[in-house]
Amino acid sequence: MSADNTCSAVPRCQLGISLREVGMELCCRCIQTESRRIGRHIEKVEIIPGNSHCEESEIIATLKKTGQVVCLYAEAPWVKKVIERMMSRRR
Amino acid sequence: MSADNTCSAVPRCQLGISLREVGMELCCRCIQTESRRIGRHIEKVEIIPGNSHCEESEIIATLKKTGQVVCLYAEAPWVKKVIERMMSRRR
Repeated sequence: MSADNTCSAVPRCQLGISLREVGMELCCRCIQTESRRIGRHIEKVEIIPGNSHCEESEIIATLKKTGQVVCLYAEAPWVKKVIERMMSRRR
Repeated sequence: MSADNTCSAVPRCQLGISLREVGMELCCRCIQTESRRIGRHIEKVEIIPGNSHCEESEIIATLKKTGQVVCLYAEAPWVKKVIERMMSRRR
């Protein structure tokens, strides 16, 4: 994930980090999505359905070790499989 | 959701709120799961697969309006449908 291919969950608009911290999203968080199959590096995912602030669903993954947040493309078959596996996985 | 039926995402063990805030979970967050079909009240969900701190996958939903967090049972068919719908939903 180089600097020119950052799939970070930085908000498109720059309205209040403090509002984000209290759980209010005022815009889309994803700028671009990760195309590589990074399933095994994912610690957890957050799914935010389309709403009045962002019309498309957003899937935001937090990576193991680094804690980096990356956005995933909800329609990608590998993303759907990763989520299914995460839901059923027992350690 | 009455007081005696709270499906909150309070950690079972009480290790460091500060650690939780930096994204480190040291134990399971779910005590019990919500049995009612509350799909339309969900603002977003977080999916945490089983790991060394908590062997079962946890699905933690944040509710619209109240911001309350409730745990969902990953194996419930309605929960799987809600997640699928959230992933595909455009506003």
